Amino acid sequence: MKVGILGAGQLGRMLALAGIPLGVDFVLYDSSPDACAANIGEFICADFNDKNKLTEFAKKVDVVTLEWENIPLSVLEHVAQYVPVYPSPRAVQIAQERLQEKTLFTKLGIPTPTYYAIESADELMATAIAHADHLVIKSRRFGYDGKGQARLSHADDAGNIWTDLGGVPLIAEQFVKFTREVSIIAARNPSGEVRYYPIAQNVHSNGILMQSRAVVNDPLQHKAEDYITRVLNELDYVGVLAFEFFDCAGELYANEIAPRVHNSGHWSIEGAVTSQFENHIRAILNWPLGDTTTRVDAIMYNLIGSMPNRDEVLTVCGAHLHDYGKETRPGRKLGHITLCNPSPERMQLIEATIHNV
Amino acid sequence: MKVGILGAGQLGRMLALAGIPLGVDFVLYDSSPDACAANIGEFICADFNDKNKLTEFAKKVDVVTLEWENIPLSVLEHVAQYVPVYPSPRAVQIAQERLQEKTLFTKLGIPTPTYYAIESADELMATAIAHADHLVIKSRRFGYDGKGQARLSHADDAGNIWTDLGGVPLIAEQFVKFTREVSIIAARNPSGEVRYYPIAQNVHSNGILMQSRAVVNDPLQHKAEDYITRVLNELDYVGVLAFEFFDCAGELYANEIAPRVHNSGHWSIEGAVTSQFENHIRAILNWPLGDTTTRVDAIMYNLIGSMPNRDEVLTVCGAHLHDYGKETRPGRKLGHITLCNPSPERMQLIEATIHNV
Repeated sequence: MKVGILGAGQLGRMLALAGIPLGVDFVLYDSSPDACAANIGEFICADFNDKNKLTEFAKKVDVVTLEWENIPLSVLEHVAQYVPVYPSPRAVQIAQERLQEKTLFTKLGIPTPTYYAIESADELMATAIAHADHLVIKSRRFGYDGKGQARLSHADDAGNIWTDLGGVPLIAEQFVKFTREVSIIAARNPSGEVRYYPIAQNVHSNGILMQSRAVVNDPLQHKAEDYITRVLNELDYVGVLAFEFFDCAGELYANEIAPRVHNSGHWSIEGAVTSQFENHIRAILNWPLGDTTTRVDAIMYNLIGSMPNRDEVLTVCGAHLHDYGKETRPGRKLGHITLCNPSPERMQLIEATIHNV
Repeated sequence: MKVGILGAGQLGRMLALAGIPLGVDFVLYDSSPDACAANIGEFICADFNDKNKLTEFAKKVDVVTLEWENIPLSVLEHVAQYVPVYPSPRAVQIAQERLQEKTLFTKLGIPTPTYYAIESADELMATAIAHADHLVIKSRRFGYDGKGQARLSHADDAGNIWTDLGGVPLIAEQFVKFTREVSIIAARNPSGEVRYYPIAQNVHSNGILMQSRAVVNDPLQHKAEDYITRVLNELDYVGVLAFEFFDCAGELYANEIAPRVHNSGHWSIEGAVTSQFENHIRAILNWPLGDTTTRVDAIMYNLIGSMPNRDEVLTVCGAHLHDYGKETRPGRKLGHITLCNPSPERMQLIEATIHNV
C-alpha cells in the first residue's frame, strides 16, 4: 500500500517512520525543499496550488492524509477526485474554522466556553464592552501554537486587537479559569472501529505546548471519550483525531479539535503499545487498530527554539530523543524528548538539559 | 551527522528507522535497485566494485557501517581511506572467514567445537574417516542462513560434499549435541563504553533462524558477556556485535560472530529500552549508549518465504508486524513479528497466522 501525506514536517516524518515497518510506502508532498521528512519515502516538492503536481501525487497513492490542518480545502477537494482523503475534507474544513468548530460542539451538546462571532471592529468593541475583560479573541482560521490570539484586558484595546489580528472574522471566547488543560486522542477506521488513548495532561507556555503526560485512569477519561465519540460519529471521521479541553474543576470545556496526529500524543511512540502514528496509518488503510494502552509511564517535553546537549539527554536513563533535523529558529518546534518512568531525579536531569541551552 | 550504510536490506532499513528520530541522516549503498531500504534516506545504487561510486558515497558521510558481513574486504578498505568504517575492516575480515574466527576463539580461551581445516578433497576424506559421522562441514566464507553447510553422515559422502560446497577451503567442525542455541548482542563505542543485551534463545530450522526470545537473568548471561567482551576488546570493536553459541548442558561453545546487528536482536525494537539498531548508530557515532534492559517479555518470529494474513496478525494483542516490503521468494526473510507479553494463547494465534499461509 502507498500512502500520500500532504505536508512533510515532523508529523509526516513520524507517520512514515511508523508506517514503513508495516510495509507501507510513502509519498510526501510539501512546498518547502527543506521539509524534515523530505528524505523518507518519495518526495514531491511543489506549491500546494499546483494542480498538476497534486494530480500526479494523488495518482501515485492508495490514500491521502495530511499532517497540517491548514491545508487549503481546495487542495483536499482536488486530491479527493482521484483517491480517498482521510480525514475527509469536511472534517478538516470544520477544524479549520473556529466558529464552525464551536457550532459543532454546541450542536453535539459538548460544553465549550461561551463564544461570540465577530465580523467587524464595531462588533468586537461592542462585545468587549458587554463582556468586559474576560475574553480571548482568536482569528477563526490559521491559528496554531497561540498564533492569531489575543487576550482582551480592556475594551479600549479592541481597536488595536482588531488591527493586530488582521481585520479578519474573529471569535471572542469567554476566558475560563481551568484547573488544567487535557486532550484526548482517538483513532477510527472506515469500519467504525475506535480506540482511545488515555488523556494527556498538557502544559502550554505562550500558547505553545511544552509538556504532555499521559494519565491512566483519569476520572475524566470517560467523559472525554464520550465527547470525542460524538465528534467522530458526527463527522464519520477516519484517522486520528485530537480533542483539547479545559478541565474546570472536573467539568470539561471543549477548546478545539485537530484532524491529525497531535503533539500531545507524541508520548505514545514509547509509552503506548501502539503509537498514535501507527494507529493513524492503520485507520486510513482500514486495517485493524492497535492496542492504545500504556506500556510505561511517560512524559513528553517539547524542544522549542534550540536543542539541548545531545549526549546529556542520551545519558539520562529512560530518555528518548527525537530530533526533527530542522534549522534552529526562535519559537520553532525542533524536537521532543519522551522520558519513560519519569522519577523526580530523571525529570530534573532532563529539565536541566532543556533549560541550560 | 550522516551515516553511510553498505547494504540496503532489512537491516539497513531498521538501522535508518532507528537513527532518523535521533536526527541522523542516511546514505545507503546497494547493488540492487529493489533493495528494501532504497526509499529511506539517500540511495546509491551501484556495483560494490565501482570504486568511483564508493568514493562518492564515502565523501558524503561522517562514518560508514555495514548491514552484511560478506561485503568484500576491498570495498571496506577503499571506503576506509576516506572515512571511518565501523566495525573495522579487520573485525569484518575475521568474521568473514570461519577458520580465522575459530582461531580467534581459541586464542581468547573461548570454548568452541573441535575443528579441522580442510584444503582439499583428500583432506576432507581423511578427516571424515578419522572422525566418522560427527562432523558438520562448512565453507569458510559466504555462509549464512545455513548456506554452504553439509552434515557428514558417512565418510563415503566426503567426495560429493567437497564438490557440492564448490571445491573451496572448508572447515570441519565436530557436531555438538546442544541443549539450545543462544546468542548475545553487545554494543561498544570508540570510548570503550559497552552494553550487553540479555541473551536470546534461538530456534533454527534448516539453518534459518525461526524464533528468538530474550531471556532475562539466564544463568549463562555472565559467561556470554565474558566471552563477547574478550572479542570486543581484542578487536577494539565498534558497533553492535552478535555472538552465537551452543549451550551444551550449561557450557557455552562458540559457534560464530556476526559483525553487525543481528536477527536474534530484532525483539529489542519493542522489547528493550533501546533497540540494537539505535545502539549500533549511537556506538558508531561515539554517542553514549542506551539502556539495554528489557521493558517487556518479547518473542520474535521470522516470516520466511511468505507473509501471513496481515489483519489477523494486527488483531493479536501485543503483536508487532514488520513487513520488509520484499518480493516473495521461497526461503527468503520477508519480515518478522515481535510478540510482546507472549501468553500461550497469543503465541498460538500468531503461530497459526504464520503457518496457515
